[in-house]
Amino acid sequence: MPTIDSRRLSALAQSALQLAGAPEEHAALQADLLLEAELRGVPSHGLLRLSRIIARIRNGVADPHASGEHVWASDAFLSVDGQRGLGPVVAIATIEALVDRAKQTGIAAAAITNSNHIGMLAWYAEQVASRDFSIIVLSTSEALVHPWGARTAMIGTNPIAIGVPTEDGPFVMDTATSVVSMGEIHDHAHRKAAIPELWALDQNGNPTTDAEAAKNGAIAPFGQAKGYALGLAFELLVSGLAASAIGRDVHGTLDDTSVCNKGDLIIVMPGPRRELASYLQAIRDMEPADGFEAVLIPGERGRACRDQRMKDGVPVVDDVYECLLRLAGQSAAA
Amino acid sequence: MPTIDSRRLSALAQSALQLAGAPEEHAALQADLLLEAELRGVPSHGLLRLSRIIARIRNGVADPHASGEHVWASDAFLSVDGQRGLGPVVAIATIEALVDRAKQTGIAAAAITNSNHIGMLAWYAEQVASRDFSIIVLSTSEALVHPWGARTAMIGTNPIAIGVPTEDGPFVMDTATSVVSMGEIHDHAHRKAAIPELWALDQNGNPTTDAEAAKNGAIAPFGQAKGYALGLAFELLVSGLAASAIGRDVHGTLDDTSVCNKGDLIIVMPGPRRELASYLQAIRDMEPADGFEAVLIPGERGRACRDQRMKDGVPVVDDVYECLLRLAGQSAAA
Repeated sequence: MPTIDSRRLSALAQSALQLAGAPEEHAALQADLLLEAELRGVPSHGLLRLSRIIARIRNGVADPHASGEHVWASDAFLSVDGQRGLGPVVAIATIEALVDRAKQTGIAAAAITNSNHIGMLAWYAEQVASRDFSIIVLSTSEALVHPWGARTAMIGTNPIAIGVPTEDGPFVMDTATSVVSMGEIHDHAHRKAAIPELWALDQNGNPTTDAEAAKNGAIAPFGQAKGYALGLAFELLVSGLAASAIGRDVHGTLDDTSVCNKGDLIIVMPGPRRELASYLQAIRDMEPADGFEAVLIPGERGRACRDQRMKDGVPVVDDVYECLLRLAGQSAAA
Repeated sequence: MPTIDSRRLSALAQSALQLAGAPEEHAALQADLLLEAELRGVPSHGLLRLSRIIARIRNGVADPHASGEHVWASDAFLSVDGQRGLGPVVAIATIEALVDRAKQTGIAAAAITNSNHIGMLAWYAEQVASRDFSIIVLSTSEALVHPWGARTAMIGTNPIAIGVPTEDGPFVMDTATSVVSMGEIHDHAHRKAAIPELWALDQNGNPTTDAEAAKNGAIAPFGQAKGYALGLAFELLVSGLAASAIGRDVHGTLDDTSVCNKGDLIIVMPGPRRELASYLQAIRDMEPADGFEAVLIPGERGRACRDQRMKDGVPVVDDVYECLLRLAGQSAAA
């Protein structure tokens, strides 16, 4: 597995997207999002996704020029038609509008439909919280998760990210409401690694540790009935407000040919300005339980990983790197 | 354990609150909230709490006349000083203001501080979703939950409720970000029942099944690291926006003498008007997994329980009922 300088990876991904027809600015946003996932150690949401994004552009189900059409349905509620745009392009344009509006209204929300996969939500949460705004981001996906007590998938992995500014920088949490993201299942399948027990059912509704079998089965909700309830609530809230597809009707984040019809919901509020850093420090300073080295703050392991990889380079699986070079029009020897 | 008609329980609870000085309307709201928990089979949030609420009124840390002071910090963001009012009184007044404002702005939020315990969040979510508005409610509590990988409590049980209107009536989910609420731990202790393994640590940070020991220890976050991340995010978001106390500085939902300094955050949006009922029906119709009788929709078991108890009466633990009679100025023989 080669370790590659992050600026080189970023430049290659951007070149690949520009070669596929994306304007420079849009290509840079999409490349940044994928690279951020690699830097944070979340390869499931990283460069592995680039070839699919480019295939989607070539197949006409992603429009690299679009950035979404904005209609303020009310003073503080924005309806966004993503116009098949690249996920991060549409989402960042939406966030700019929300941040601007929330300064006046105190809270502003947007429901997005017809946009491509917006990827790792932490990327957005960190940017917004760095600007002294709090943010809640919800996104739906293909039905990949089984309701608690069921045998087949009916609910998206429906992640949530929350960003809150603190005087020491942003707090950011980002988690799927499934035990793992389907991206992680695909990453395991790609690496021919087994998945842990209790993560997933196969297509017959039986427990499996075979990542390939899990791709055609169903992932468990996290935290059993509670995670199921949260994931289902997000499915209803997002698809309801965005008028996006629901349940098994959702397509387009895991294939090359379907228009992406999932929804996203973003809520932005200015502040808070309250001091929060000493509380987080008190948590970091707690005595760890048996079997733990330290008590961690969500998001900080990823940030430490990013700092290290910015310095030392990013390990990338061989064929992902080869594919990246090919898509950027370079030979592997370059 | 006697089974008592729900109207009689409601009348007794209201009388008790009026005897303690609450105006009729405020007493009725507080009694309704407690009774709703009993009807839904959540006694931890039911009449067990009445004697503490009344003690708090007598001790001057709950003001039964207050309904909160509203300041619109922005067009769509309401700051509420609860003025030590009863939780449901302050919360319902807040929700009325939010529903009214959200009709114009498309979304409206309120951060509440200085209000007493708002109790079972599902009660609010169901009322709002029944009026064709979506709602997200977050509330903090005393630090009762340990960060994932820590030995002691530092985070509230920080529940979330989400209500979404559907054409068949409201969808409502309501869950603590702990494995269980402290109310359930207290209910187990009250009934001298053991708690399941992995629910809690004792005051020395060791696993325990003794509910009494758990009362002085720490409850686990639900879903391990993910539930910890959610609970912590809610702690930061709510205490930050409400300027309420954080972590171990929170008091007043489990004692008789401290001003209640936790915070609440309520977000209301009109709609959605999209059809959601057929999706929920498809989930109900799914084949259950081994060991399950049916695939359930969150909130519906509680609603069925309510329907049955409205008809057949509510089972109430002996001493809770005796206490209720005493507080209402009636003898047990009445």
